[in-house]
Amino acid sequence: MEQTTPLITLTTDFGLNDPYVGQLKGALLTGCPTATLIDLTHSVPAWDLLGAAIVLHSSYAYFPPATVHLVVVDPGVGSDRAIVAAQGKGHFFVCPDNGILSLLIEEEAIDTICVIKPLALGAGAISATFHGRDLMAPVVAALAQGKPIRELGDELAPVLLQRLAPWRPIRTAQGWQGRVLGVDRFGNLRTSIRASQLHGFLALEINGQRLERMVSTYSEIPCGTLAVLIDSCGFVEIAANQASAADCLGGAVGNGVTVHCVHSPHHH
Amino acid sequence: MEQTTPLITLTTDFGLNDPYVGQLKGALLTGCPTATLIDLTHSVPAWDLLGAAIVLHSSYAYFPPATVHLVVVDPGVGSDRAIVAAQGKGHFFVCPDNGILSLLIEEEAIDTICVIKPLALGAGAISATFHGRDLMAPVVAALAQGKPIRELGDELAPVLLQRLAPWRPIRTAQGWQGRVLGVDRFGNLRTSIRASQLHGFLALEINGQRLERMVSTYSEIPCGTLAVLIDSCGFVEIAANQASAADCLGGAVGNGVTVHCVHSPHHH
Amino acid sequence: MEQTTPLITLTTDFGLNDPYVGQLKGALLTGCPTATLIDLTHSVPAWDLLGAAIVLHSSYAYFPPATVHLVVVDPGVGSDRAIVAAQGKGHFFVCPDNGILSLLIEEEAIDTICVIKPLALGAGAISATFHGRDLMAPVVAALAQGKPIRELGDELAPVLLQRLAPWRPIRTAQGWQGRVLGVDRFGNLRTSIRASQLHGFLALEINGQRLERMVSTYSEIPCGTLAVLIDSCGFVEIAANQASAADCLGGAVGNGVTVHCVHSPHHH
Repeated sequence: MEQTTPLITLTTDFGLNDPYVGQLKGALLTGCPTATLIDLTHSVPAWDLLGAAIVLHSSYAYFPPATVHLVVVDPGVGSDRAIVAAQGKGHFFVCPDNGILSLLIEEEAIDTICVIKPLALGAGAISATFHGRDLMAPVVAALAQGKPIRELGDELAPVLLQRLAPWRPIRTAQGWQGRVLGVDRFGNLRTSIRASQLHGFLALEINGQRLERMVSTYSEIPCGTLAVLIDSCGFVEIAANQASAADCLGGAVGNGVTVHCVHSPHHH
Repeated sequence: MEQTTPLITLTTDFGLNDPYVGQLKGALLTGCPTATLIDLTHSVPAWDLLGAAIVLHSSYAYFPPATVHLVVVDPGVGSDRAIVAAQGKGHFFVCPDNGILSLLIEEEAIDTICVIKPLALGAGAISATFHGRDLMAPVVAALAQGKPIRELGDELAPVLLQRLAPWRPIRTAQGWQGRVLGVDRFGNLRTSIRASQLHGFLALEINGQRLERMVSTYSEIPCGTLAVLIDSCGFVEIAANQASAADCLGGAVGNGVTVHCVHSPHHH
Repeated sequence: MEQTTPLITLTTDFGLNDPYVGQLKGALLTGCPTATLIDLTHSVPAWDLLGAAIVLHSSYAYFPPATVHLVVVDPGVGSDRAIVAAQGKGHFFVCPDNGILSLLIEEEAIDTICVIKPLALGAGAISATFHGRDLMAPVVAALAQGKPIRELGDELAPVLLQRLAPWRPIRTAQGWQGRVLGVDRFGNLRTSIRASQLHGFLALEINGQRLERMVSTYSEIPCGTLAVLIDSCGFVEIAANQASAADCLGGAVGNGVTVHCVHSPHHH
């Protein structure tokens, strides 16, 4: 490992108005003063585990190997949920055991998981309400400094991790039934449908509208119309050209999305 | 001091939409190119000195020794208010002399204060409206690079610093009278009451509601109810479980909060 | 160049809620793991090229020489617009060729421009919708690591770059006609009028109000009134003292601003 700077990414639902992100970064830098800290986002909706899981899953692979990814969305802080450290695809992950790693587990991207023993780290005072700062940050700092993950706690089989409720599209006679997972700043609707599920694409239906146009880039979409395209992470997106598809469609997170394909998988 | 990377934290009321934070960071890195810059927050409400003081006070101690903390909330820019550099608890602080250091002074956390002489630094052009960038940043960069604080200006006795109007809770016959200092992103109401003031806790009253339940963690709060707990900084907080206490109570900054204790201090 | 840390600034219209900024930073750090990344802002309004151009122009010079400035506001992604790298005033700039560099070109601040050849970099997979991450980030990383700009593509004469529609003030018989370019977090209205255009200042008119008071600092403005001053970047600003000029005036981006001067330039 010839990397000169330990890299740590942060994903939380803390927002940027409160002192929580600053305190978390202070704790990380106290444990690993040479780390470079990169915010993925602190705008995950409060307690939204699927939102956090998607940010992590869609972003981690763009970072160099050995990056440590910390995710603190923790509705169960103070309950008996565990804190875990995981290793896979050359990256490290630290988060509560509450489903945040589901998408990585589904892809078999995780090789090793350890349940953190708080006392193993000689951490300082541990508050009852901010385990990100008091428990997870020291673990992240230790990994960033090269401590082997197996020294942080007992190993756990990946199948024993908490998982989120199923969110992937369902096959139907006509094609696939999915939903809107997010609306980005430009009003693009990100859906749960994957590029590979558009084979034989006929049309996409959402909120009573039927879209038959599939394009490669926003600039191909005629002004005032909507189209279907593959976003930069491999998901199907509904977009306009320099306008908000969400506004045009009244689209929002959770809306159902139906894809019709000419040769539905059920017909083979 | 074997720390490899100079650390600087930033707390301002600039928001993130305007170019001010970027310019400030450019000035800091011009003066100290190896510094790691960490945002505590740029969302202090405009000109809110108590808000800035609380962020600084609740966060600085999580950073490693020798960190330099810059706070630019500066309603008096262009008036004759001074710029000060302070040292205490192994940390450095740079801000206008307008009360931002009050909470640290009250705790006797400050050992040395110097009033900055602008010319001592050989700074460049100084605008009339952005002293954070033109005056404070060079001071911060100098401290981050190890320049002794006493070379930056004349010493001032801590008692001569500006102080904010009293904001701490007042003792009453029944217990304590405080107020809501902040509402965080989760809708938790942070109050001015300290953990140590809950001795013999009977109830907390706010906005006509009386809360008698005290818990250690959010997950102990029954769904649909509110409770009192100690937040991760040692202040009393009013919270719900995965819901917004502020919404339930119509709670907002400045609301009065009364704590009733079984053995009020006045009865001894 | 004895700078120890490569510096990269980022200006985008991505906002901070989506995973785009994180992915972009991952790509930059994959290409240049030792870089320090500084956000100028990610809050440029979606597809607002003039807004991005102003942030870049007003901020870049505060950074040390050799800083690489990446601007991703890219309504034409997927069209045949080019990606360019530019050098000038000791800094580097990477952005789509869509007018973002207009203000720098107008000031003759750019010496060299190269049109990027995607294949020259041996980049990985290139998505159709996120060229900031897949094409521009590798170029930025290469420049940050010292690769000569001329190795990135063919040179282009600065006059051949795309330019934004004229936005600078127009001379009139009475003085100057400009407009509001931005409203900052404090409610200050930033206009297109420059300090040098206030020679012989009589009054500024906006939204039916006439302002005759010119001050140097906010603290000189009497409470409850408005005044004209020069902002920290050399532009004329309309401000109040610890209050929002935008609220007082119903002021917004695009509002016309007329400056009357005693000796109008036309009378000489």
